[in-house]
Amino acid sequence: MRQKAFQEYYPDHLSHCYGCGRLNEYGLQIKSYWDGEETVCTFYPKPYHIAIPGYVYGGLVASLIDCHCTGTAAAAAYRAEGREMDTEPPLRFVTGSLHVDFLRPTPLGVPLDVRARVKEIKGRRVVVGATLSAQGEVCARGEVVAVQMPEHLVPDKGEV
Amino acid sequence: MRQKAFQEYYPDHLSHCYGCGRLNEYGLQIKSYWDGEETVCTFYPKPYHIAIPGYVYGGLVASLIDCHCTGTAAAAAYRAEGREMDTEPPLRFVTGSLHVDFLRPTPLGVPLDVRARVKEIKGRRVVVGATLSAQGEVCARGEVVAVQMPEHLVPDKGEV
Repeated sequence: MRQKAFQEYYPDHLSHCYGCGRLNEYGLQIKSYWDGEETVCTFYPKPYHIAIPGYVYGGLVASLIDCHCTGTAAAAAYRAEGREMDTEPPLRFVTGSLHVDFLRPTPLGVPLDVRARVKEIKGRRVVVGATLSAQGEVCARGEVVAVQMPEHLVPDKGEV
Repeated sequence: MRQKAFQEYYPDHLSHCYGCGRLNEYGLQIKSYWDGEETVCTFYPKPYHIAIPGYVYGGLVASLIDCHCTGTAAAAAYRAEGREMDTEPPLRFVTGSLHVDFLRPTPLGVPLDVRARVKEIKGRRVVVGATLSAQGEVCARGEVVAVQMPEHLVPDKGEV
């Protein structure tokens, strides 16, 4: 049976994000999965995700790292509690800070692999480190401090 | 006479970037201008640039800061040499690193103002600090280390 992506567990009213919402028809709709202690997301940039000819736009690299790491934070928080991702209460994370080091230009026209690993879980704060690779070569390295979403920001199901 | 945006000086073969290329019909096409010692870019997010309902997707915030800051780096490098941006040789920058602190959720449905200021110019490296504000309130703060593009990456005009 196919493993379900983290983002497929998000309830409908939290599935509109441009980066990872499965209901955003204009968005990137990234999908993240466990691979042992790491998480992985493979993304196929479109030709228009260009920086200069032949290379991927840095904002996309940052966006992939951002959304994959907040998804990883959520998955790790459930795993730390020994819970499935579709159990109540929901745990959803937003980005507190994002750092990306661009190590080499990211080639356009090949799939990109984002791999992440939790560095620290402390209360409502999860620190996640990530790499973005193309054809086995690391092109960017990132770190996201993800923070559990304040309850007042989580929309009621009826609102959306 | 209307001030020309930094990105309008970029030659055609360097104007395909998803974030700031004026020739990328799918892209954000941001426009950056001098405002004294600072630079400013105003951007109107689309409804689909959503994170959770009512708020802007963090990857867009990061992308705006990234492209506005690399544009600022280029403009500052020309200014430091006392040159107009359409004079030869061209100075074009890529992102070495990007850091964004998300201070509060960025509201969706209002224009966003990105303001940047050069912190340091040292050789081929320009450090740029930025804020992103909505309705006068700073929502995110960022820093970009921009690096002058290596000559071998700059495409020949004939290639594109």
